This record gives sequence, C-alpha cells and structure tokens, in this order.
Amino acid sequence: MSAEGNGTGGKSPLKILDEQYVRLFEAHLEEFCKEERSNIPERLAQSMAYSLTAGGKRLRPALCLAAAERCGVAPERALPMAMAAEFIHTASLIHDDLPCMDDDDFRRGKPTNHKVFGEALAVIAGDCMMIWAFSHALCRLPAQGIQPERVLRAVTLLAEGSGPAGMGGGQVLDTDRESQRDDRDFVFEIASMKTGALIRAAVASGAMLGDISDATLQCYYDYGTHLGLAFQIVDDILDVTATKEELGKTPNKDEAQDKRTFVSAYGLDEAKRLAVRESEAAAHALEPLFPQGDLLIDVAKSLAMRTF
Amino acid sequence: MSAEGNGTGGKSPLKILDEQYVRLFEAHLEEFCKEERSNIPERLAQSMAYSLTAGGKRLRPALCLAAAERCGVAPERALPMAMAAEFIHTASLIHDDLPCMDDDDFRRGKPTNHKVFGEALAVIAGDCMMIWAFSHALCRLPAQGIQPERVLRAVTLLAEGSGPAGMGGGQVLDTDRESQRDDRDFVFEIASMKTGALIRAAVASGAMLGDISDATLQCYYDYGTHLGLAFQIVDDILDVTATKEELGKTPNKDEAQDKRTFVSAYGLDEAKRLAVRESEAAAHALEPLFPQGDLLIDVAKSLAMRTF
Repeated sequence: MSAEGNGTGGKSPLKILDEQYVRLFEAHLEEFCKEERSNIPERLAQSMAYSLTAGGKRLRPALCLAAAERCGVAPERALPMAMAAEFIHTASLIHDDLPCMDDDDFRRGKPTNHKVFGEALAVIAGDCMMIWAFSHALCRLPAQGIQPERVLRAVTLLAEGSGPAGMGGGQVLDTDRESQRDDRDFVFEIASMKTGALIRAAVASGAMLGDISDATLQCYYDYGTHLGLAFQIVDDILDVTATKEELGKTPNKDEAQDKRTFVSAYGLDEAKRLAVRESEAAAHALEPLFPQGDLLIDVAKSLAMRTF
Repeated sequence: MSAEGNGTGGKSPLKILDEQYVRLFEAHLEEFCKEERSNIPERLAQSMAYSLTAGGKRLRPALCLAAAERCGVAPERALPMAMAAEFIHTASLIHDDLPCMDDDDFRRGKPTNHKVFGEALAVIAGDCMMIWAFSHALCRLPAQGIQPERVLRAVTLLAEGSGPAGMGGGQVLDTDRESQRDDRDFVFEIASMKTGALIRAAVASGAMLGDISDATLQCYYDYGTHLGLAFQIVDDILDVTATKEELGKTPNKDEAQDKRTFVSAYGLDEAKRLAVRESEAAAHALEPLFPQGDLLIDVAKSLAMRTF
C-alpha cells in the first residue's frame, strides 16, 4: 500500500489507527460477544456474534474512538458509542447480503449470515442488532459519566446517519430501480447517504461525547462527510484496479461494471481526482483544530494515496 | 363485544381509550407522514407511510399516551414516544410479512408492504422505521421539555423491549425451528417476549416521561407485562372462536392449529382462564395507584371479557 511512510515514522496512518483504536475495539467486542447473552435466545446471540466477529476494517468505531479522544473522552469511555456504530454497520451488511438484496453467499471469505442461520433469523438478527445499538449506547454511555444531554445528541447523530435520510435512504437509492437517475450527481448522492452518512455519524457522535463547541463539532462533521465520500470513491477504484492480493478478495469487475460507481460514472482518472479532492477536503476540515497536524488528518490524506 | 357496559356509562373501555388517545395519535401520524419527508428518498417515504397509515388498533401508542398522562405529561407532549413505539411495531410487521418469514400477501385487507414495493425496499423500510423511532423520540422529546435523563431512560426502555431480549428475541423463539421447545411454559416465554415486551415498553416508557418514583414505574411495568400476555392469549382465543364479523378478518383455524398458541398448548377453557388471570394481574398492578379505579384498569379487565 503506497500510503506507507508519509512522514509518520514509516508506519501508515491506517496502521497507527489500527494499533491505537481497532485493537482496543476488537478486544472489547470479542469479550462482549462472549458475555452479553443474558435473556437473549441462544441462536439469536450466536447469529449476531457470528457477524459481529467476522472481521472487517472497523473503520467506523476506530474513527469514533479517535474523535472522542481528541475531544477529551478516553477511548475506553467512548466504546459504547463505537459499538453502536459498528452494530448498525454490521446489521446493514447482514440485510444487504440477503437473497432479496445483493444475494451474496460469502462476505470476507466466510458464508454470509443467512447462509449459516437461515434467512428468517438473519432478518431478525439484523433488526435486533440495530435496536441493540441504541439500548447499548443509551444505557452504557451515562455509566461512563457522559452527560445525558451529550448522550442524547450523540446517539441522535448516529440515528440520523443510519436512518431514512442517511444510510437507509442511500441503500434505497442504490438498490431500488424506480428511485434511480442517470445523472452523475446521483453517484455522489448515493455515496454520501449510503456510505458517507454513517462514517460521518461515527466521527461526529464520538466528538459529541466531549465538552466541545458547536463549531468544533462542525469540523468533525465536515471531516466525516468528506472522508466518507473519499472512502467510497477509493473503494470503487480499488474494486476495478486492485489485484486479489492487495484487496484481500477477488476484484469483482463484472459487478463494478454493472453497478453505478464513481468509476463507471466518471472514468478511472476522474474518479482518482475526486478521491484526492475529497481526501483533501476532509483533511482541511480538521486543520483549524490541529495546526501541527494529527493522525486523523494523515488518515484522510493517505486514503486517496491508496489508489496510486 | 361483551366488554360493553362494565360501569363506564355504556361505553367499553377500549372505545374510551380510542376516543381519548387513538384519535389524537392517528391525526398526528397522518400529518407526520404527509410532512416529514425532507431528505428521504420519495419511494422510501411512500413505503414507510403506506404501512404506518394502514390502520391497526394503535394499542401501543394509546397505552403510552395514557400512561404518560397519568404521570403528569399531557398526551400531546408524549406523542414522540408513542410514535416511536408504533414505528417499531409497524417495522416488525413489515419484516414479519416477508416471504422468508410468514410470507403474507395481505395485512388488514391491504397488500403487504413487499407486495407493493418489493422485498428489498420492504427490508430497508423496516430497518429505517426502526431507526427512525429512535431519532424521532431522542430529538423531539427534549423539545417537549422532557428532561434529558427521563428521555434517556424512556427510550432505553423502548429499545430493551424491542431488541434481542424483547420483541426480537420472541420472534426468534416463534419462528426458528432450532430454538423451539415442547413444554407449555415455552408459549408463555414466546408471548412475553414477542408481544408482551413491546406493550410493556410502550406503557413504561410513557410513564417514565413523567416525574415519577421507581415504585410507580414498577406498577406500570407490571401492568404492561400482564396486559401484554393477556392481549396475546385473547388474540389466540379469538383466532379460534371469533366469527368473521367479530374479528374483522377470516379466522385462520388451520394456522392456529399449526402454530404454537395458548389454545393449542392449554386448550380453549384453560386459555380463557389464563386470559382472566393475566387481565386481573394487570389491573391489580395499577390498583395501588388508583384506589378509585381508572380507565387503564378497566381496559385490562375488559380484555379477558372479549373471549366470553
């Protein structure tokens, strides 16, 4: 990955993000899935744990923890917010994989949830995980000493990012034939809702846990908006250009040509330019808060570098 | 209906509940579905509005508003909590009707959501409605002057009642073959999770909006627990005994014999006895708060009467 060695002592920003936040999150999640089963039917607990522990980049929880720490809240205290963001993301993947949606048999090399537990249980497991996100955050954040007003606002940000005007709305634009348009702006609209809204919500809800001003919140919000777009553009580019080894999966060129992506709408070169533009806009949004630089700024800058 | 004329001036308690709370709720919901479409893809808004306005008893929101009013919160101020309970209930019905679940083509005489909008949109509409429940309540209850701590606790009650240890867990017990047991207690377990948990949450979350003690909350919580069970038992009985006119639908005797119900597990007479027992327990839970009687107590008592 060409993001290595951009002035952070040889380690890529994503690697540092991983060491500082993803590992903490993974350990917590692992423990949670083993222990938190009281009053939950066994097969349902198994089904949810199966998808929650099936790997993934954990980008949303890592960004949530990083934003919280920068706003004065130790990552350990922000874990319930990060968990909630990952619950909603995982739930959306379980439902995305269903036969009536993308009809995928495998995700990250493992059989999809409905292949293991059946469609009915997969539908309910996704539903439960979405609702669990809210009970988890609403119940555990106050126990971490986060003020009730801040909990309310942070969890509201997460709900808005995942609901009908956020991720859920984006899924409709992406999958519902009658909702689709042919203009190129539509690709931006889908990406900013389907992918961008939850990434932005993860960042902003983490920041919101701290004692910050609305102006500071806006910086994190804008960072999340542009980072989310950059992330989707890079994903679309890598789907076309990456080799199997780089991507960790078979590049699905047929699918990429079928589906509306930044590459199909803008062509490869213009898509790369857009990735750089959104990465830089994300970095730019945080620069007023960190004139000396910061890992989150490096993460944003390194994202577009992955496509070169 | 034999619940008429039980000392409330000729009107049945359910009719009074309807006049005092359901009409207010219906008017609010109707208005909301027309107006609240900003940033929501049109087809998604249509799909959600289709199921939200497709009728139904509105028992959960009515109980929520009634409990709130008895705890000092005017029904108008508690509407966001009642809306959230109904959103979650409606979302669960959309997913219940899917081909991979109950595979129903009609609900309340209208084509089910997936029959009109397709399965993919029905899955996402259900997801979005569940999440909308939370953003709606978290955002609008504070605007009604409800204290943030109370909002947090009330919405947590709703989430717990609908998630993996509540309604969602009950759906798994009800539909997942590998989760099922043969003992009669299992029917209680399913009903108390699948139906009871959300009814209890609707009552308790409404009460929680007021400035009440934990002891008072417990009364409403217990009321909701027993009322939810009574409601399911009565529903199972009416599915077998009611004529088409009484029920407003064709009694589905084959289904009732196929599925695990209170009637199939206990027989009709014992089921009626259990309905009376749970109705009385619900009434009993609220009696300390209302020594002179109350509509909610009458509602509970009248419920079992419907089976005679």
